[in-house]
Amino acid sequence: MARDLNIGMVGYGFMGRCHSNAFRTAPNFFDLPRRPVLKAACGRDAAKTQAFADRWGYETTETDWRKLVERPDIDLVDICVPNDLHAEIAITAAKAGKAVITEKPLARTAAEGEAMVAAVEKAGVPNLVCYNYRRMPAVTLVKQVVDSGKLGRIYHYRAKFLQDWTISPDVPQGGAGTWRLDVEAAGSGVTGDLLAHCLDTALWINGSVDSLTAMTETFVKERVHAATGKAQPVGIDDAAAVLTRFANGSLGTFESTRYARGHKALYTLEINGEHGSLAWDLHDMNRLAWFDHRTEGAFRGWTSILVTDGEHPYLGKWWVPGLIIGFEHSFVHTMADFIAAMDSDTPAGPTFRDALETTRVCDAIIASGRSGAWQTL
Amino acid sequence: MARDLNIGMVGYGFMGRCHSNAFRTAPNFFDLPRRPVLKAACGRDAAKTQAFADRWGYETTETDWRKLVERPDIDLVDICVPNDLHAEIAITAAKAGKAVITEKPLARTAAEGEAMVAAVEKAGVPNLVCYNYRRMPAVTLVKQVVDSGKLGRIYHYRAKFLQDWTISPDVPQGGAGTWRLDVEAAGSGVTGDLLAHCLDTALWINGSVDSLTAMTETFVKERVHAATGKAQPVGIDDAAAVLTRFANGSLGTFESTRYARGHKALYTLEINGEHGSLAWDLHDMNRLAWFDHRTEGAFRGWTSILVTDGEHPYLGKWWVPGLIIGFEHSFVHTMADFIAAMDSDTPAGPTFRDALETTRVCDAIIASGRSGAWQTL
Amino acid sequence: MARDLNIGMVGYGFMGRCHSNAFRTAPNFFDLPRRPVLKAACGRDAAKTQAFADRWGYETTETDWRKLVERPDIDLVDICVPNDLHAEIAITAAKAGKAVITEKPLARTAAEGEAMVAAVEKAGVPNLVCYNYRRMPAVTLVKQVVDSGKLGRIYHYRAKFLQDWTISPDVPQGGAGTWRLDVEAAGSGVTGDLLAHCLDTALWINGSVDSLTAMTETFVKERVHAATGKAQPVGIDDAAAVLTRFANGSLGTFESTRYARGHKALYTLEINGEHGSLAWDLHDMNRLAWFDHRTEGAFRGWTSILVTDGEHPYLGKWWVPGLIIGFEHSFVHTMADFIAAMDSDTPAGPTFRDALETTRVCDAIIASGRSGAWQTL
Amino acid sequence: MARDLNIGMVGYGFMGRCHSNAFRTAPNFFDLPRRPVLKAACGRDAAKTQAFADRWGYETTETDWRKLVERPDIDLVDICVPNDLHAEIAITAAKAGKAVITEKPLARTAAEGEAMVAAVEKAGVPNLVCYNYRRMPAVTLVKQVVDSGKLGRIYHYRAKFLQDWTISPDVPQGGAGTWRLDVEAAGSGVTGDLLAHCLDTALWINGSVDSLTAMTETFVKERVHAATGKAQPVGIDDAAAVLTRFANGSLGTFESTRYARGHKALYTLEINGEHGSLAWDLHDMNRLAWFDHRTEGAFRGWTSILVTDGEHPYLGKWWVPGLIIGFEHSFVHTMADFIAAMDSDTPAGPTFRDALETTRVCDAIIASGRSGAWQTL
Repeated sequence: MARDLNIGMVGYGFMGRCHSNAFRTAPNFFDLPRRPVLKAACGRDAAKTQAFADRWGYETTETDWRKLVERPDIDLVDICVPNDLHAEIAITAAKAGKAVITEKPLARTAAEGEAMVAAVEKAGVPNLVCYNYRRMPAVTLVKQVVDSGKLGRIYHYRAKFLQDWTISPDVPQGGAGTWRLDVEAAGSGVTGDLLAHCLDTALWINGSVDSLTAMTETFVKERVHAATGKAQPVGIDDAAAVLTRFANGSLGTFESTRYARGHKALYTLEINGEHGSLAWDLHDMNRLAWFDHRTEGAFRGWTSILVTDGEHPYLGKWWVPGLIIGFEHSFVHTMADFIAAMDSDTPAGPTFRDALETTRVCDAIIASGRSGAWQTL
Repeated sequence: MARDLNIGMVGYGFMGRCHSNAFRTAPNFFDLPRRPVLKAACGRDAAKTQAFADRWGYETTETDWRKLVERPDIDLVDICVPNDLHAEIAITAAKAGKAVITEKPLARTAAEGEAMVAAVEKAGVPNLVCYNYRRMPAVTLVKQVVDSGKLGRIYHYRAKFLQDWTISPDVPQGGAGTWRLDVEAAGSGVTGDLLAHCLDTALWINGSVDSLTAMTETFVKERVHAATGKAQPVGIDDAAAVLTRFANGSLGTFESTRYARGHKALYTLEINGEHGSLAWDLHDMNRLAWFDHRTEGAFRGWTSILVTDGEHPYLGKWWVPGLIIGFEHSFVHTMADFIAAMDSDTPAGPTFRDALETTRVCDAIIASGRSGAWQTL
Repeated sequence: MARDLNIGMVGYGFMGRCHSNAFRTAPNFFDLPRRPVLKAACGRDAAKTQAFADRWGYETTETDWRKLVERPDIDLVDICVPNDLHAEIAITAAKAGKAVITEKPLARTAAEGEAMVAAVEKAGVPNLVCYNYRRMPAVTLVKQVVDSGKLGRIYHYRAKFLQDWTISPDVPQGGAGTWRLDVEAAGSGVTGDLLAHCLDTALWINGSVDSLTAMTETFVKERVHAATGKAQPVGIDDAAAVLTRFANGSLGTFESTRYARGHKALYTLEINGEHGSLAWDLHDMNRLAWFDHRTEGAFRGWTSILVTDGEHPYLGKWWVPGLIIGFEHSFVHTMADFIAAMDSDTPAGPTFRDALETTRVCDAIIASGRSGAWQTL
Repeated sequence: MARDLNIGMVGYGFMGRCHSNAFRTAPNFFDLPRRPVLKAACGRDAAKTQAFADRWGYETTETDWRKLVERPDIDLVDICVPNDLHAEIAITAAKAGKAVITEKPLARTAAEGEAMVAAVEKAGVPNLVCYNYRRMPAVTLVKQVVDSGKLGRIYHYRAKFLQDWTISPDVPQGGAGTWRLDVEAAGSGVTGDLLAHCLDTALWINGSVDSLTAMTETFVKERVHAATGKAQPVGIDDAAAVLTRFANGSLGTFESTRYARGHKALYTLEINGEHGSLAWDLHDMNRLAWFDHRTEGAFRGWTSILVTDGEHPYLGKWWVPGLIIGFEHSFVHTMADFIAAMDSDTPAGPTFRDALETTRVCDAIIASGRSGAWQTL
């Protein structure tokens, strides 16, 4: 029987739900060496924390994350709170010898992130940043196909993450649900929130970025702050577009915005190689578009692979061919992989160190958006 | 705190997993008046039953369904075994005063089904046949739009359920996974397995069928039987196509097959009315295609609604707009609705009585397939 | 230099324009043994006929088709008038030794069609019924792939032709543009107008039909007749759905209607074989969907072939890969093929004899729609 | 009866065919004030020129464009030869008082283009650069919708033009069909050839560009030159990606490449505004994707408008709803509009002056690609 893995969850918002669901569900579908136990939920508001714990089956609650981190019965601290809190909690947890997961991005800045990496590596604790889209089965399949060499030389990598939820100037900054518009809490706007996803996938699949230039924009210059009730300048980037040169010689184009009317969470990526191309989007996340130039001429075209077969990544654990999975399954896969590897020498990625690279690229984007100059990484 | 609802699960196959997952997950997302408790799992093979119970957290196991049904600590019997066992288990459970859920179809024939309806109605126990596709959010939205009258007079209803998994003559009949090819266990082939889904949705959305004519075919005439290891005649329909006249004056066309190469579980439906049309398919189950003739001329077209907004059926309980759900969520919705309504006067459908109508249509299809004559219902 | 082929066009409506454009355009793109010359246009209304001739460059006009047919300077009579006139004009033209093309369907009934076939065969004149969809490049490619054996045994053939232009009861019957609703002029409704296209393609690709059963319906029972200005019963079928058994053992489903809101001219076809499947629709006519089961497992899926490469049928004559063609190009291909083959032993199809088979199937559909009984062909 | 418009065509390649077809076809579908007459075809190779003239019905031929331009029976000179010849021919034709059309781009550089603008404006002759994609009906509809204000404030404009035909290093530079890879003949690579299309549309629909930064790349550094048979350095850009700031405050992203495996001529554009969005691509050119945020919540989505109705731009002149047109129709529309307006005060665009702006943006892209710095326009 698998040993217990006692989880302390910090935060009960959108991501707190996603991670909790993942820990609860993973052992029903995956064979894991340790059994996740929802030991404690932690949040500042005692009543909300208790309600969250009741719904998800956490055994206990805490209202002070420092208490949680100190508890000897906690094995893993999972950080699902705004970005400005990641560093301190993660570093403290690492020092306490806990395994640490943090929701992405690693931190607001690479400087913060470096301290986090140092802490987990010094402590030697398992660590992961939850960039969940790597483990959408179709995205994992992209990685497998690229690694197999089937595409040959890579020429282009493109990714976008488009949303439309902040077009109204009445959306506040700060507070629950809207802390992502508050530069203090979030560190940046779409760059750290959305582009970071695109970049994590890109660095994983297509390797490192050598240099980049970016354009950033804040369309709504002032918003009411939830904390003060007063209009104050908006410090985040509402939109960002980036041109990159990858180390492998390919060209990258990246864009993210919350002002693309009609797109809710449209993360798209495409990669063009000498012998073939691959394209994916989050709205139709169970499909992968694949062009194989080696196919006999008259039959060439883009194939829409419905990624639900037993031989596709992760799918053998779910249902039968043709039956799709959803958004939250990517978190289940992430937690299953993390637990499976946490006691091994080959940890599941992205580790804090892996994710630091993404944050460095984000910093370069913000810098280039200000200066207009190319940044070398 | 919600009262417990103690569940006794019969069967640990594909549907046993789906139903178990639904009972486990429903209370994390829906506010339910009773708390589902996985009390007992039942199967003939003790080891497999125990492994299933361990994985899903069932507290106890049984190897004889009669024992399970008699247990006073069981409130609800959920039948996830082949069709030939539905009637006896359901009738016994109803007599024991248990709420009863059975995986679809209700029974192999209407005659069997009538006895089941009589039993649950005599016992006055909550009952449901798990036709899960009604509660795909996009399908529920179809129902809402049609009921709202937005389509006006209905002219056409079309549905298909296409698969390709039995093309090889090497697939056996009978046994785990392939009992659906054994007419004794299944009652019929694609008619009861796949068309039944299409018919349940159609009767729910478009009302009753007055008459029909059908063509059925068995492409592979002989298959090895898993029980005997010998080739024996195939008694099921491999494919069926049906023309129907609905009571509302509209025309229906239905088709199902397991010989449509390239389609895994392609349940599609389309309904055409005077003022608009709707179309849906299971492979892209989070999208609903909608044509509104009242739109200004130059802007008319088929709108692909990504059914992930808070105002769409069930979606307010899940994630945020743009993030899709998967196949198994339809079971979660079914169980949540059943539990929410089980102590009320307006039970969640389809009840056994509702589902009997679907089985009557299935019987008529098989009869017409043999005789070539139109059948009146 | 190619010999002249002098064309006498009967009719100046929609199809008169399509055929005229085809004759004018074909020699710009195809190398033809004879040069089509727009010699004479013929219509009852002298002014409209002259305007038509002026626009398209016809050298002369006639108002009596019998005069046209008698003219020694006419080599080919092209019949683009309502169906009730096909037989008499075609037979007279054949007797006069003219090559004859008629717009589809061949005739209102098989009885009429038999006389036409006898006439052209007795006269030994080149003849063609313009079922243009055979020569959509993607449809021609379907034929090539099926003939190559790549699909293996065929299990299913499906076709539909959906429109929505007669939903309003205010559309009259009879007269220009609406003669298709007048059973006297048209012979039948959607069966001869739309299903006939589906059937021509099916018989060409999948071989002959052995038997069928059909459901037909007239949704709007009375319409004003353009000739009388009075409401009178509608004699045509507004919708028809058909189940067929093909001689090769495959099952067919066919449907056509003018009451499918949102579909303008949605001719769709799909064919499922042992090793692969093909699907096409007219709205996206330059694409062919292709599923190849022989592809390596993880990469299987439906490939959308953009049929614009030089190696695709007809495309080498047009532009460059990626640049699509339109509806009228199918007529250009038809006329080019007809002219290329008219003096050879292997005429371009469908000849009158080929098309008679389609009309026989149409007759059987109408008969089955009335009787409810299966019809053997 | 319309006056004749005598056309002198310079060039008999791909574009010579497109323009010739447009002049031949336009009067069959559009009511024009002048009747285009294919008076003379001009090319250096006498035999090929004669064959071209025979195929298209040109009355005469010339092998020296200066002779053609001097002929008093020529009203319009249409330039369909490589870019390096545009300026001299156009300026000479303008001086001779001829109307002038040139295939895009206007010229290799803005400096060349300025001389051309000066010449046609001094001569007062009708002039046009054939950026044909403006007159794809769906693109024209984009312009109409944006101009109507339905989108509100514009936030984003995106366009790409992706091809894959030069991936092989064996494709030569220079010569028929491949002069586009020779920087002397073409002026630039994908920037002038493909991005120029995207830019023409963008400037027309979304207004002027204030500033931009670009990344350009030449993947294959050396190719055999068709003229010399020797490998020599490639001077063109194989790929270009651009970030722009438009004068209306919106952000633009543009990309073009001939190394995007699987894309033949994939020109895509998308525009996001406050109240709605529009998206289009050339491979499915008869469809326009439209998102209207003002639609009632549950019914919002992207509508695929099949741009084939009579009320859509240009479509009333063609067939009936549902029947699509092809690539070459955009040239028919261009020539029809040019002829309709050539004697009016409101000429059809883009005039040489309009198109000069596009060439200026192209020059800035090439400059930024070299320097890495933002360029102000």
